[in-house]
Amino acid sequence: MKKTIAIDMDGVIADVEKQFLNWYERDFGIKMVKADIAGKGEDDAFPEKGIVRKFATTPGFFTTLPVMEGAIEAVQELMKDYEVYIVSAAMEFPLSLSEKLEWLKLHFPFISWRNIIFCGDKSIINTDFMIDDHIKNLDYFKGHPIMFHAFHNTGYTHHTRVHDWQEVLTLLKSRG
Amino acid sequence: MKKTIAIDMDGVIADVEKQFLNWYERDFGIKMVKADIAGKGEDDAFPEKGIVRKFATTPGFFTTLPVMEGAIEAVQELMKDYEVYIVSAAMEFPLSLSEKLEWLKLHFPFISWRNIIFCGDKSIINTDFMIDDHIKNLDYFKGHPIMFHAFHNTGYTHHTRVHDWQEVLTLLKSRG
Repeated sequence: MKKTIAIDMDGVIADVEKQFLNWYERDFGIKMVKADIAGKGEDDAFPEKGIVRKFATTPGFFTTLPVMEGAIEAVQELMKDYEVYIVSAAMEFPLSLSEKLEWLKLHFPFISWRNIIFCGDKSIINTDFMIDDHIKNLDYFKGHPIMFHAFHNTGYTHHTRVHDWQEVLTLLKSRG
Repeated sequence: MKKTIAIDMDGVIADVEKQFLNWYERDFGIKMVKADIAGKGEDDAFPEKGIVRKFATTPGFFTTLPVMEGAIEAVQELMKDYEVYIVSAAMEFPLSLSEKLEWLKLHFPFISWRNIIFCGDKSIINTDFMIDDHIKNLDYFKGHPIMFHAFHNTGYTHHTRVHDWQEVLTLLKSRG
């Protein structure tokens, strides 16, 4: 039986960080780059408090997210050796449910609806590996956690960090 | 730490069977009762093949489902001793995602969004108990499966069967 991987969406296969920076420049006329928000939390990444949450609750935010570089090819590669599940925390923002499903169908049409999970917290998800950018999900995971690099997790060192999808492949190809 | 229960929606806390029978009478003018479809599969429950699937893909089907008798009080009672998660297979019918969330907010407002999971298959759900009417979910579950009585599962005897929510409480109160 294939080993299983739970792969997060936002910050892992969907580049929310790029979208935040693009929308911030569009709305406030200030160009910021990834280095400007590195090490900050989602709530204080930008001078305007709550702007990240405001963006995430705007219709169209999730349907227009850029795909994380290399994610499509890497997920296809992993599916040869692993049973891949997309596990996304979507319940906090009800609008995101249909938008996320639409986005997956557009960019990852090779992932079956059987392998998609939208949840609140991820504490009852049981897979061999979890690739996620949030330590709140990784900390309570019972399998092997893999922390995908993101601006808000730069200060944490207690999980195996991967910086991009090439590093995910290198890591998992050696463990499969 | 509280033990965990995954509770299904359709056929467990939502009375889809009653809705099928009501809609069938409304659309075809034929009054059928639960005994008429007992032991049949979802595909051949009614003379018209595929009508169950057609109902389930009709806008408003999931928002207007009757609550299963006794479910609200029983879930509230269980929440005193267990961490309760609502785990529903919703991905096959994308429209159902927002409808199911709306229905839960209306009838089960005391369940946090953190404890709601919409999935494709349920194979990576890891709780101590699962209450579900479908053997395809119960058969691969690693915890204690509890089969909620439904017309389509009357022929199966390999899981502990409960006929109503009072039986769920009696069973789980003795095991908590």
